[in-house]
Amino acid sequence: MRVYDLIKLKRDGGALPAADIAELMEGIAQGRVPDYQTSALLMAIFFQGLSEPELTAWCDAMLHSGDVLDLSDLPGRKVDKHSTGGVGDKVSICLAPLVAACGVPVPMVSGRGLGHTGGTLDKLRAIPGFQVDLSVERYRELVRTVGACLIGQTDQIAPADRKLYALRDVTATVESIPLIAASIMSKKLAEGIDGLVLDVKVGSGAFMKTEADARALALALIGIGERMGKDVVALLTDMEQPLGLQIGNALEVVEALEMLEGGGPADLRELTLAQAAEMLVLGQVCRREDADARLKAALESGAAREKLAAITAAQGGDPRALEHHGAGLPRAPESRPFRATRAGFVRAVNAEKVGRAAVVLGAGRATLDDVIDPAVGITLLKKWGDPVAAGDELCRLHLRESRGRAEAEALLGAAYELGDEPPPPRKLILARLAGKPASA
Amino acid sequence: MRVYDLIKLKRDGGALPAADIAELMEGIAQGRVPDYQTSALLMAIFFQGLSEPELTAWCDAMLHSGDVLDLSDLPGRKVDKHSTGGVGDKVSICLAPLVAACGVPVPMVSGRGLGHTGGTLDKLRAIPGFQVDLSVERYRELVRTVGACLIGQTDQIAPADRKLYALRDVTATVESIPLIAASIMSKKLAEGIDGLVLDVKVGSGAFMKTEADARALALALIGIGERMGKDVVALLTDMEQPLGLQIGNALEVVEALEMLEGGGPADLRELTLAQAAEMLVLGQVCRREDADARLKAALESGAAREKLAAITAAQGGDPRALEHHGAGLPRAPESRPFRATRAGFVRAVNAEKVGRAAVVLGAGRATLDDVIDPAVGITLLKKWGDPVAAGDELCRLHLRESRGRAEAEALLGAAYELGDEPPPPRKLILARLAGKPASA
Repeated sequence: MRVYDLIKLKRDGGALPAADIAELMEGIAQGRVPDYQTSALLMAIFFQGLSEPELTAWCDAMLHSGDVLDLSDLPGRKVDKHSTGGVGDKVSICLAPLVAACGVPVPMVSGRGLGHTGGTLDKLRAIPGFQVDLSVERYRELVRTVGACLIGQTDQIAPADRKLYALRDVTATVESIPLIAASIMSKKLAEGIDGLVLDVKVGSGAFMKTEADARALALALIGIGERMGKDVVALLTDMEQPLGLQIGNALEVVEALEMLEGGGPADLRELTLAQAAEMLVLGQVCRREDADARLKAALESGAAREKLAAITAAQGGDPRALEHHGAGLPRAPESRPFRATRAGFVRAVNAEKVGRAAVVLGAGRATLDDVIDPAVGITLLKKWGDPVAAGDELCRLHLRESRGRAEAEALLGAAYELGDEPPPPRKLILARLAGKPASA
Repeated sequence: MRVYDLIKLKRDGGALPAADIAELMEGIAQGRVPDYQTSALLMAIFFQGLSEPELTAWCDAMLHSGDVLDLSDLPGRKVDKHSTGGVGDKVSICLAPLVAACGVPVPMVSGRGLGHTGGTLDKLRAIPGFQVDLSVERYRELVRTVGACLIGQTDQIAPADRKLYALRDVTATVESIPLIAASIMSKKLAEGIDGLVLDVKVGSGAFMKTEADARALALALIGIGERMGKDVVALLTDMEQPLGLQIGNALEVVEALEMLEGGGPADLRELTLAQAAEMLVLGQVCRREDADARLKAALESGAAREKLAAITAAQGGDPRALEHHGAGLPRAPESRPFRATRAGFVRAVNAEKVGRAAVVLGAGRATLDDVIDPAVGITLLKKWGDPVAAGDELCRLHLRESRGRAEAEALLGAAYELGDEPPPPRKLILARLAGKPASA
């Protein structure tokens, strides 16, 4: 295999042989392929795409560039979820304990937040003591004994993906559906799962701005899963406005607790229950029509809430911080209202701008080295379609030493749009897509 | 300017601002832009192209990454020619003395051969003592006093082009018409010329395999010339079979001498005279209708032949080597006939395969470090359309210690196609294209 020939083949619309992809990826992971050839190939893939067999080979090669966990000796079908990233998306924190409480083991390797989107790991770290950097042995042990474990990507998982992602990030080749799909699936398949529920976000706060792009990504992800023998279901969900009302790490843990205690905003509840039901079915613990009752029972009995405490304790966190609606979680010293300057109806709460406002306050990272303040964030008091009087509080900023206040307010001013007429209602779950069941 | 933004802009079909192109090129020349970003941008340009203003800015930035010679204080309009490269193309060796003998100064910076095509510099170096690495001062002096000077590209000419070309060569981004055009013109415009005649080759032995591609390249070259205030004329010419009968460095000098002495093969003669006439007109020494008579006089008087001797002497070569039809030039110790195994008509003499056969014998370089043997090569005895009897000599190999003989014979066997019917006649000059005269 000459890398030059592979670049030329892809450039001219040909299909890369699977054996060459495997050799290439080994070369990339080991640093033998120069970055300038890799980046030229990535740009050629941006334009020419990857066929289904190429995509599977690409993903498989990235997967096998590192360790692939084998959890097949643990009882039960292991099921995870993956979200393509959004603002206010704390579903994983509700979902892992809820699904585990229903008897489906959840091995979850999550990412850190970057850009305007938050990351599950950063939210969990708002719980004092919570550790996300566990050994593979401890991870396996906790999936077996607690039923769920949420950790960060280790250096051993898909190193070729990490290398490629770093290069894509500086060569404008991130926005390629097959490359995104392979990147997601190579990491998820390394976890040792049998099934996967995907939350593919659509809208201003999402990576995929249109439903068509989100659908194409979902189909690529499902296709890889099918060919790799995994059950995959994807929901396309709205990320035009943030999910729920809280944005910011500790604030989102509080909202997740609310949801597990039977409350929480309707959209968070709807999306959590929809994904949880899919996970129970993939986990084969019940039929589709029984899933809602199982979930309701796990919530009403307190089992799901207890499971979050158990996960927290098992991962070194202090479960007492979660008591009394999360009263022991970090709390920002200042809070400021952000008010409407006119009356009307909320016609937009631009998720990307709200996400950026939260980052400016310190809730996220503008660069990989930024330190996150777990306490700061934004509470939305008005969302899409809500009627507003002039002077009403649209949202509330939670700050430390007024850091980022002016810039965040400018972003929020741009995020909120008010109009004279109420906008049409929004749908949260836009579509459900599924591959052929691998286990059928 | 962030390089990332330029890559993304081009990837999405946008136009790069001229100021950003200038800054980018400076960064590339100085090594500040990482190769992986440059190669991603080059691949994006491969797919999205460059608009006319972008192409001009790109070429101008490459040109000004190095020294730009100013010959405007020398009398007369300076005119050069450039060939996109072929097999058996010794036109420059005929053309420079012929045109200079007619009073048009010819400042010619030529390339070395690479791949299956020969380079003018390598041919000239077959003349004992001939130097192509002259200082800029000496080059200027010889253009003024002798009327022509043929040198190699110096490190000071368009260094950004050299850097980009090396990267394109390993990232499958050579075959981009705007990038080819900018590369050619940045080097030619650095010579200090007023006018340029382009020989854009078409066919199996050429870089451009189709007339449509050759035409697109010619138009891109002419467009740059127009916008840079230079007179440019392009001829599209056939390179399906080699030009002339001799392939190999000393052999081609001998054939060029024949042409200057009034003989030589008809195709070499036709192409040289056509290009020379264009150069006389661009040089403004005569009207179009008078050019043929001027050229005929320069050939018949021996002035053109004498000019080659003068150029040779001025550049350190031994003009006596050219006497008696080049009897003093290197000569291969062995020669072997290559015969037809059947009767028929020659229906193909694939130029690329013949060129590769000559390289195998030692006449060219497979890699940049290969040493050329000036004496070896191939003499074609049959060309397109010639009738052949079984056992006739199709061509003759000139060898040293039988080096490469078997491989060359295999290539020649594949290059020659014989059929029962004579093929349709070939046209040598397919089209003439010209920009708006800058000097009008």
